[in-house]
Amino acid sequence: MNPQTVLRFIGILILFLGLSMAAPLIVSFIYHDGSSGALFNSMLITCGIGLLTFLVTKKNKGAHLNHRDGVAIVTFGWMAAGLVGAIPFLMSGAIPDFSNAYFESLSGFTTTGASILDNIEGLPEGILMWRSITQWVGGMGIIVLSIAILPFLGIGGMQLYKAEIPSPVVDKLKPRISDTAKTLWKVYILITAVEVLLLSLGNMSLFEAINHAFGTLPTGGFSTKNASIAYYDSSYLDGIIIVFMLLAGINFSLHYRLLRGDLLIFGKDPECRVFLIMVALFIVLISFNIHGSVYESLSKSIQYATFQVSSIITTTGFVTADYEQWPSLSKNILMLCMFLGAMAGSTGGGMKTMRIMLLAKHARQEMFRIVHPHAITTVKLGGKAVPQEVLSSIWGFFILYLAIFVASAMIMASLGLDMISAFSSVAACIFNIGPGLGIVGPVNNYLAVPLLGKWVLTFCMLLGRLEIYTVFVLLMPAYWRK
Amino acid sequence: MNPQTVLRFIGILILFLGLSMAAPLIVSFIYHDGSSGALFNSMLITCGIGLLTFLVTKKNKGAHLNHRDGVAIVTFGWMAAGLVGAIPFLMSGAIPDFSNAYFESLSGFTTTGASILDNIEGLPEGILMWRSITQWVGGMGIIVLSIAILPFLGIGGMQLYKAEIPSPVVDKLKPRISDTAKTLWKVYILITAVEVLLLSLGNMSLFEAINHAFGTLPTGGFSTKNASIAYYDSSYLDGIIIVFMLLAGINFSLHYRLLRGDLLIFGKDPECRVFLIMVALFIVLISFNIHGSVYESLSKSIQYATFQVSSIITTTGFVTADYEQWPSLSKNILMLCMFLGAMAGSTGGGMKTMRIMLLAKHARQEMFRIVHPHAITTVKLGGKAVPQEVLSSIWGFFILYLAIFVASAMIMASLGLDMISAFSSVAACIFNIGPGLGIVGPVNNYLAVPLLGKWVLTFCMLLGRLEIYTVFVLLMPAYWRK
Repeated sequence: MNPQTVLRFIGILILFLGLSMAAPLIVSFIYHDGSSGALFNSMLITCGIGLLTFLVTKKNKGAHLNHRDGVAIVTFGWMAAGLVGAIPFLMSGAIPDFSNAYFESLSGFTTTGASILDNIEGLPEGILMWRSITQWVGGMGIIVLSIAILPFLGIGGMQLYKAEIPSPVVDKLKPRISDTAKTLWKVYILITAVEVLLLSLGNMSLFEAINHAFGTLPTGGFSTKNASIAYYDSSYLDGIIIVFMLLAGINFSLHYRLLRGDLLIFGKDPECRVFLIMVALFIVLISFNIHGSVYESLSKSIQYATFQVSSIITTTGFVTADYEQWPSLSKNILMLCMFLGAMAGSTGGGMKTMRIMLLAKHARQEMFRIVHPHAITTVKLGGKAVPQEVLSSIWGFFILYLAIFVASAMIMASLGLDMISAFSSVAACIFNIGPGLGIVGPVNNYLAVPLLGKWVLTFCMLLGRLEIYTVFVLLMPAYWRK
Repeated sequence: MNPQTVLRFIGILILFLGLSMAAPLIVSFIYHDGSSGALFNSMLITCGIGLLTFLVTKKNKGAHLNHRDGVAIVTFGWMAAGLVGAIPFLMSGAIPDFSNAYFESLSGFTTTGASILDNIEGLPEGILMWRSITQWVGGMGIIVLSIAILPFLGIGGMQLYKAEIPSPVVDKLKPRISDTAKTLWKVYILITAVEVLLLSLGNMSLFEAINHAFGTLPTGGFSTKNASIAYYDSSYLDGIIIVFMLLAGINFSLHYRLLRGDLLIFGKDPECRVFLIMVALFIVLISFNIHGSVYESLSKSIQYATFQVSSIITTTGFVTADYEQWPSLSKNILMLCMFLGAMAGSTGGGMKTMRIMLLAKHARQEMFRIVHPHAITTVKLGGKAVPQEVLSSIWGFFILYLAIFVASAMIMASLGLDMISAFSSVAACIFNIGPGLGIVGPVNNYLAVPLLGKWVLTFCMLLGRLEIYTVFVLLMPAYWRK
């Protein structure tokens, strides 16, 4: 690893985040919400830190970025974003406690959407805007991470995407990042803009529309209302948000292809097909389960089921119904959705549909091998054989995920949380969803979680978002050896 | 598959089970418990069925058993044992309902120990004896299955054991089964006899000592008392049972080596070392957690923690304390123990320590590959490289386990069980433990589970016991094709 190079990248990132504080600053001026001074100072400090970091590090001419640099930039970059993102919360007094402010900020940048705020509506508009921006910017980061950086690093089976990146495949990290990023960011910005437009045609102000679109596209889930989307009680808004949550859960390179004229791409892509079939199946099951037992009206049952399945499986975390009150089958299905997550290459979290598919195919292949012990078989996806090292990488990813999940749930339980709260709080954070069950359920927040628990969950958000390996290799002695 | 051969084997098995009904018959004579007639008729019917099946099938001279025959004998054999094992329960009127009788019988043969009986102490001694024998015979079956048959079939990474079987390795299934089986059964019988002796030196009658030893060695967990081992409230008996539960959770080929004079084998074997370290760790954690919060006395805390960890991780299921009342950390650890299970080659269920170790090693190797993408690495166990197909088989096993686990828990939830009862009932059955949490907790039983739920759980017991693949390949069209 080259510390100069890594720091230089992080300096640029911090500078960029500082500059993006201009947006909440403008909002605070418009609303005269009293947070302008705090936001201005935050912007100054953040830009200052970024610029200083950039200036004191030397340009490393000619040398390419290697695997180790990539891992360090990603992990330390996200951690640094969480730090500077907390500055406006702290300076404005909106969240006076550092642990809480860092939790909220990293929850934004990891697009988790878990909140420690118990009265969101009492916050200045400028601060709410910044909170939404952390998510939206985090989402931009994730697109680059999951489509350009992770495949290159070969993390958790992501190398499968190498061939599918819509930019010329080159061997150096940097040109690939920038080419791919620019294309996909255009798509991301375009879809966000369309959602803002459609939401503002409904029962939302432009400010609310922007904030909620900024919460949808990165599958974040921060709302400007305490009751989340349930506040609006509008089937039009629910419908729009459902569509955009699902779009956010689909690989962004498919959106690019769709915009280039390949109108049937969602049906042609094997991962997308499975993702959409799963969503439909879960909606049907939950609709049946809650109709009659919780809601009299069938249409309401379908509306709430569709919204909540879409929200949880894409790991967004918006809420229109207190699913805590649903029968245990529905709650189990939602727990499963948390775990499954959305498509690889989307802004969603969780295991990702592609990995689930490959694991299932692998299991089927192993059964076949019992019957035909000498047959040579390969796991295929979309007609192409999946290399053994890709499967191997996914398995490693999977077991690490489980191990961290269990260890974290143990710590949460040791802090006094009941079993369901302990497990679901970790699931909601490591899979970057937001709300869980029990004390962190849809009508609660994370304020009541003990201090150590908050830091465990913060670490879970980071691990989940960066696909674990990226963080964990930094803890290996082999990483730091020359 | 050769149906004649498979049926012939199953006929012999049924005949053997019929003959083994002589033991409970003798017990019923001694106690004049009124079940002699029913047991005698059951024995007659069972022997009749077995003999008939044996006689109508032709001997298949010269042809070797192949993979498909092996799978069919194991799966259909266990199912048939469940059927004939239910006859004494039905005929004596102890369990008049067929679903309940089959549940109890298969729970015995799979050494699960889950019971639908709510007043065990009201049953005739002969029937209690038969109930214990189903477990003990099931345990004999499992030793052969896990050390001789599964490694040969290459199921779920069990081929790792091929080299470690204490009998000459030959290529045909039959001689290997019989050689290995005879050796290991001697060990099994010897350890059982020692436990009977030690238990009867405590506060147990010979009848109770035999029954509880027959519940310990196969890691079954059926007791002759409603309150399980808690009835005796004796630290001597607890201690003896703890030791023998742990012995039952250790690979039986290690016991063979120990008896041959290799006194340090438990410390030398890498899997055994990890197993014992895990047990010690969990005992310490739970002891700390329950001391003060549940029990005043430190020694009682350690005693209960040691007993319950040993009982659950070996998947025995004996109970000395209502762990339902323990703090959630302790309950989480016990849930983890359920999942982990004991050593491969023991009578215990669960994932097995060896698989967990290989999964963990694999995950570490994948992290190493991120740092050194071009390094060629292998997973090693005890200094030897583990072949890729072994790992591959374990992964397939693991994902099938999880998929069935989740699907079954969904069904249980749809039948109205709360989340914890739904998940823990499936865990307790698929990992062959017995008691779970919630409505199937340590002071409850499975009687209240809805009918469909009982059959789902019965299927889970079978799947878990036969390491899933063995049952699942029978559902594949490829299996039945010529």
